[in-house]
Amino acid sequence: MQHPDPDYSCAYVIIYTNSNDGIEGHGPTFTIGRGTEVVVAAIEALKYHLIGQDVHAIFDDFGGFWKKLTSDSQLRWIGPEKGVIHLATAAIMNALWDLWAKREKKPLWKLLVDMDPEKLISCIDFTYISDCITKEEALEILKKNSSTKQEREIFLKENGFPAYTTSSGWLGYSDEKIQKKCQNALKEGWTMFKMKVGANLEDDKRRAKLIRQEIGYDKALMMDSNQRWDVQEAIDWMKQLAEFKPKWIEEPTSPDDVLGHAAIAKALNPLGIGIATGEHCQNRVLFKQFLQSGGMQYCQIDSCRIGGVNEILSVLLMAQKCNVPVCPHAGGVLLCELVQHLIMFHYICISASLENSVCEYVEHLRENFKYPVKMKGPNYLPPTEPGYSTQLTAKAIEDHVYPNGRVWEELRKAGKINH
Amino acid sequence: MQHPDPDYSCAYVIIYTNSNDGIEGHGPTFTIGRGTEVVVAAIEALKYHLIGQDVHAIFDDFGGFWKKLTSDSQLRWIGPEKGVIHLATAAIMNALWDLWAKREKKPLWKLLVDMDPEKLISCIDFTYISDCITKEEALEILKKNSSTKQEREIFLKENGFPAYTTSSGWLGYSDEKIQKKCQNALKEGWTMFKMKVGANLEDDKRRAKLIRQEIGYDKALMMDSNQRWDVQEAIDWMKQLAEFKPKWIEEPTSPDDVLGHAAIAKALNPLGIGIATGEHCQNRVLFKQFLQSGGMQYCQIDSCRIGGVNEILSVLLMAQKCNVPVCPHAGGVLLCELVQHLIMFHYICISASLENSVCEYVEHLRENFKYPVKMKGPNYLPPTEPGYSTQLTAKAIEDHVYPNGRVWEELRKAGKINH
Repeated sequence: MQHPDPDYSCAYVIIYTNSNDGIEGHGPTFTIGRGTEVVVAAIEALKYHLIGQDVHAIFDDFGGFWKKLTSDSQLRWIGPEKGVIHLATAAIMNALWDLWAKREKKPLWKLLVDMDPEKLISCIDFTYISDCITKEEALEILKKNSSTKQEREIFLKENGFPAYTTSSGWLGYSDEKIQKKCQNALKEGWTMFKMKVGANLEDDKRRAKLIRQEIGYDKALMMDSNQRWDVQEAIDWMKQLAEFKPKWIEEPTSPDDVLGHAAIAKALNPLGIGIATGEHCQNRVLFKQFLQSGGMQYCQIDSCRIGGVNEILSVLLMAQKCNVPVCPHAGGVLLCELVQHLIMFHYICISASLENSVCEYVEHLRENFKYPVKMKGPNYLPPTEPGYSTQLTAKAIEDHVYPNGRVWEELRKAGKINH
Repeated sequence: MQHPDPDYSCAYVIIYTNSNDGIEGHGPTFTIGRGTEVVVAAIEALKYHLIGQDVHAIFDDFGGFWKKLTSDSQLRWIGPEKGVIHLATAAIMNALWDLWAKREKKPLWKLLVDMDPEKLISCIDFTYISDCITKEEALEILKKNSSTKQEREIFLKENGFPAYTTSSGWLGYSDEKIQKKCQNALKEGWTMFKMKVGANLEDDKRRAKLIRQEIGYDKALMMDSNQRWDVQEAIDWMKQLAEFKPKWIEEPTSPDDVLGHAAIAKALNPLGIGIATGEHCQNRVLFKQFLQSGGMQYCQIDSCRIGGVNEILSVLLMAQKCNVPVCPHAGGVLLCELVQHLIMFHYICISASLENSVCEYVEHLRENFKYPVKMKGPNYLPPTEPGYSTQLTAKAIEDHVYPNGRVWEELRKAGKINH
């Protein structure tokens, strides 16, 4: 389903410690309006696992802590490990990783890169995925390219990590607007472009044709249908768009439908079209199946939907085992800021390759972020500040905190909301 | 995961109308303690779809209303159609079906049985399942046995619908307790028995042996591991228990793992062991895949986890299309009361067969239910009161409502809780 009226927001955890170092861990999970309060209720339900605990003990057995949080025997009933309760887990875990990285005075990606592989593996819960990857296999992957880590770190500092843009590809743009947007993006150096499809086939053809006319066929074009289709419909529709040589079709159907994605892949891969999904993928068990089934040619991790870095590590390692490139989902509130850390770690320590790997980029709201991403042309530069870049500015929090932030008070005064 | 400390509870919706008929729709969704408040927050977030609406308009386009609820473009982000938000949808839809059946002065099963097949089909959202079943195929299934509906209705009123018991099969029972429980159950006429497994293989063998000694091999024995194992572990463990001829192993691994269940089925079906799952199955898209993949030989619908009767109808029809018998999950708070309606409708209008079909039965808490199930020996008798048997007694509500019910006040006074 496309999202006709998103109201970008987030549930936001701040962890304080009794240390006098002044360091706080900040952890957001992205939401799009109504429902944020439901995620907050889930965070409230989970927080007793955290309050009063020794952070050293948590970081010493981070895998164990993750398991405690996700195995809460009563709260599992309302998941398990999916939807609201897992978004809440993500916010808490994001805050803890931010705290840890800040205490170590490193950006999160660097904390991960420098971490001993055994320690890194100990953060992961392998429950339910051992038929895809074992601890030993994961360790082997991490060790394989470790001797050349430094050269990739230097490469990233120099060149950045490649991104793509969706700015020219939104539904409903006029011919002129599309042409203008493409020309601007080309001038800025973009080489990969994504467009939304699925509302109207003729309009999709019009826009795809225009975009290809502007960008040519040496640049990459990706398509995204945001879960619009049933399985056969996805196949039929995309066959009609195959002439425009899309690199991938993203979220062709329900994000829960592993077998459906596999069937679509089987029909479209021979036409050169890969299947991309992951933005709504609920947990490592679904990622495992997408990777095992051939239903996912591009693994679109999101930094806030599954249970934080711990679980994302398991997905990155399974993707590597299955030879699937990782192309993160980003945008929204802070998703670019967080996911850049993960994709840089992935390149330096896991994939050791940029082939087919590209990260989504959306430029907006950055004035609200304390550590907004830094780009070099169409590439993400590695963040340099300690932490996970999860932090909103003090002003953004003050203005937007519900229910008494300035923005809410103004909406209330203007009679635009009654809550 | 087994649930070591359940605190049986529910989120509970009551729908009032401005009619002067005094009829209310009651809709529970079962929870096991912490997290109930999260589901309540989700119900609060969804309720604006309902308040002030015309119930005739809702029932006239019940499929459309369901779709409106589950497609809420902002709330989809925190699902979609899974976990907390879907449990909330279940509570609301359960209340609406209760209201509808009461207004028609029929028990829910009878409302469904008497409903025109076209009308029934119009309640279902076929989005994402058309590759398994189309509207036309669903209609055909409903029409196929309609001429003989009445004889099955008469049969059920006479004999009831077969149930099984888990009373002798809990973990940690002593030899004597198991023997005694089995003997009592046999005396009461039970012919199907379920035991919990997965904590300790030797103890599983001890208990399985004892149960088989008591019940013999002409009765059915089922096993349930409550998501304890990884895929290979499930296969290895159950091979060790195959000698006790279990009819099925229930929830051998993650409820999200379609391919894992299919792999386990492939290994265990040749030993005569089927795979049962569904209690935690999040929505029709997962059910579809379990049914398509061969990972589910017994379809265990639950009345409160997926989006109410509307979505359950789609699962019942897909199961029939895939020749998989339906054996509902029940127990907890009101689950037996609700699901009996569904399984009776299923037998009368869809399967027209009792082969391999059996419903879980747990006798407890019934003093809290306004319309507790009526049994004839080990069989459910069709409910006779109008509605969906969703209603708690006035006293149960008064005593247990959070935060000011009598039970909570007493816990607070005793210093046992501080919330």
